[in-house]
Amino acid sequence: MSLYPSLNPTPRLLLGPGPSDAHPAVLRAMSTPLLGHLDPQFLELMNQVQDMLRRVFLTTNALTLPISATGMAGMETCLVNLLEPGDKVVVCAKGFFGGRMIDIAGRTGAEVTVIERPWGEVFSMDQIREVLQRVRPKVLGIVHAETSTGAYQPIEELGKLCHEFDTLLVVDAVTSLGCVPVRIDEWEIDAAFSCTQKGLGCPPGLSPVSFSPRALEAMDRRKTQVQCWYLDIGNIRKYLGAERLYHHTAPISMNYALHEGLRLVLEEGLEARWARHQKNCLALKAGLDALGLPYTAAEGHRLPQIHAIRLPAGIDDVKGRKMLLELFGIEIGGGLGDLKGKAWRIGLMGYNSRPAVVLVLLAALEQVLTRLGAKVSQGASVAAANGVYAA
Amino acid sequence: MSLYPSLNPTPRLLLGPGPSDAHPAVLRAMSTPLLGHLDPQFLELMNQVQDMLRRVFLTTNALTLPISATGMAGMETCLVNLLEPGDKVVVCAKGFFGGRMIDIAGRTGAEVTVIERPWGEVFSMDQIREVLQRVRPKVLGIVHAETSTGAYQPIEELGKLCHEFDTLLVVDAVTSLGCVPVRIDEWEIDAAFSCTQKGLGCPPGLSPVSFSPRALEAMDRRKTQVQCWYLDIGNIRKYLGAERLYHHTAPISMNYALHEGLRLVLEEGLEARWARHQKNCLALKAGLDALGLPYTAAEGHRLPQIHAIRLPAGIDDVKGRKMLLELFGIEIGGGLGDLKGKAWRIGLMGYNSRPAVVLVLLAALEQVLTRLGAKVSQGASVAAANGVYAA
Repeated sequence: MSLYPSLNPTPRLLLGPGPSDAHPAVLRAMSTPLLGHLDPQFLELMNQVQDMLRRVFLTTNALTLPISATGMAGMETCLVNLLEPGDKVVVCAKGFFGGRMIDIAGRTGAEVTVIERPWGEVFSMDQIREVLQRVRPKVLGIVHAETSTGAYQPIEELGKLCHEFDTLLVVDAVTSLGCVPVRIDEWEIDAAFSCTQKGLGCPPGLSPVSFSPRALEAMDRRKTQVQCWYLDIGNIRKYLGAERLYHHTAPISMNYALHEGLRLVLEEGLEARWARHQKNCLALKAGLDALGLPYTAAEGHRLPQIHAIRLPAGIDDVKGRKMLLELFGIEIGGGLGDLKGKAWRIGLMGYNSRPAVVLVLLAALEQVLTRLGAKVSQGASVAAANGVYAA
Repeated sequence: MSLYPSLNPTPRLLLGPGPSDAHPAVLRAMSTPLLGHLDPQFLELMNQVQDMLRRVFLTTNALTLPISATGMAGMETCLVNLLEPGDKVVVCAKGFFGGRMIDIAGRTGAEVTVIERPWGEVFSMDQIREVLQRVRPKVLGIVHAETSTGAYQPIEELGKLCHEFDTLLVVDAVTSLGCVPVRIDEWEIDAAFSCTQKGLGCPPGLSPVSFSPRALEAMDRRKTQVQCWYLDIGNIRKYLGAERLYHHTAPISMNYALHEGLRLVLEEGLEARWARHQKNCLALKAGLDALGLPYTAAEGHRLPQIHAIRLPAGIDDVKGRKMLLELFGIEIGGGLGDLKGKAWRIGLMGYNSRPAVVLVLLAALEQVLTRLGAKVSQGASVAAANGVYAA
């Protein structure tokens, strides 16, 4: 007799800020029997994963690999390997995840300078130039796609700007990779981290990271040990390098998943994938406009994969999301921080960025908002989205 | 056109020191569609995982949970949360993984005292009492089942001894949990960590940990921040507690796997599971004796789940293991450290501790050793193992 029954969860459609649904082929790959983590077949698989990650990050960085923990561990990996006590770091905070960088950077003993923008806005190159000039930091950290607000931070010119001041650029690409372009080499990014459960269409569990040669040199010049053993890139380099020096046991099944996820990204093609996200974004936006739901992020700086919208007056956040979940099995996210109780966050990422998802979500939102007493023009949002697809 | 084909690895039987094969039902559970990490269904699943972990660790410790990274991160979690700069810690090193504790404990800024035994031997209570008396450490760390040598360290009385000196006992249960008894409450263990890919029959990717109330008090008395953000138990407590404060996105599929793995452990029953490991250990030992392969661990201190044996003179380690892998798809481990090139390590853990595995391994070893020129009495090892099962 068993204490608990086997899993059999009620199916969900995951349209929050993450995780998103994994592609069915990825789920299937996870049930592949295990290989040993030093098996020649597994080493070849890891070489392929690294090669594919480089193609998705658009980089030739040798040190491009999945950290064996979730996205937040990727953020910590980038910061603890580049910072040591007494170093100066600037964190650009314009939402929840910038705040995370402040906490983690502070634990390295580095001197943290914070520049801020109101949630939903983004930084101008002038504002960043000013702080670089003033502080002359070793590292500048910024979030590319701010999951808490749906704001897109332009970073195309930021690497060049940082390098004028001999500063290393660390980019949070958790919500951007696989949805919008992340061009590590062209944009001169020195360290980037992401996750598996959004644009790559895999379950959460790994954090892809990439370090430029400039970042590696900075690590080689360290005077102190990296404070976190598990995330010490020096050890991980030996594990993944020719020596194959044992560091930890790689999460085999998660790497199976990432291998399949990356295969699917490259099979679709990066340009086609970005265009798909853009198309479904426009359709969803047309529908949300028809529902009368305004965006929280400033016009011109909105992500195609995260739509953060302000709730109409009188609409109860928790009640609405509960209704969506219970009636339709659809999960969306609530607001974080300043936007708690006031916003919903809708993710169309990776596998979930597709027309059927947009249509069912709009239809369900229409019903929920109507039930909650909002004035909604019936059928208008679905019609608007269909109009975009028909165009 | 795809860059690489989908996965289709040649099947392996994983009989090294880990990972071991995951139970087929666990692999199946991993392909379950995702839930959101804050979905009520997922929260209930995590409650069940924590409840089942307590039953497997034989503890009522509230703070019993899987860390979202592999076993080595569990070791680091225990040490970085209990140690801060200036604290004293004793590490008992008698193999490779004791050495790991020294490295990790050193990074906390604690003062590390090391006591040693030759690889393969274990510590006596007298030797440990002496060091406790001399150093009066805040923490003593020891490996329960030393994967590098196959040695079993008795720890039944160690918690009481440590508490005489107000010392917290940290136990590495990576290779013991699910194979041999680990009685956290009865043995007064203050912090223990394990992995998923050995006795629990899951893939690698999570690290179950448990902290006693005494350990929690020590954490509450800390004067400094935990140096590693991702492994900071203070944050993780808020995530798993009633507040459900977002810390990181739990690796959903790995937790599905652990849920199923723990279910199977409890369905079998702990006593029955330990007896199964013991029985298959005896059969394998009879076979290895018949093959003339001596153990590296001292008599009376050998683990039933890891059999480390010395290679006969003239038998090439790498050639032999390669033959096993290529002819039979069987993976076993080589020696680590002092035993590199001189020993093989055979794991019979979790799902893989079963008679069919013992018989095929012995038959394959017989063929490989014969091919490599060892004098082996043909059929004797299988007969000896069968004799144990028949008894």
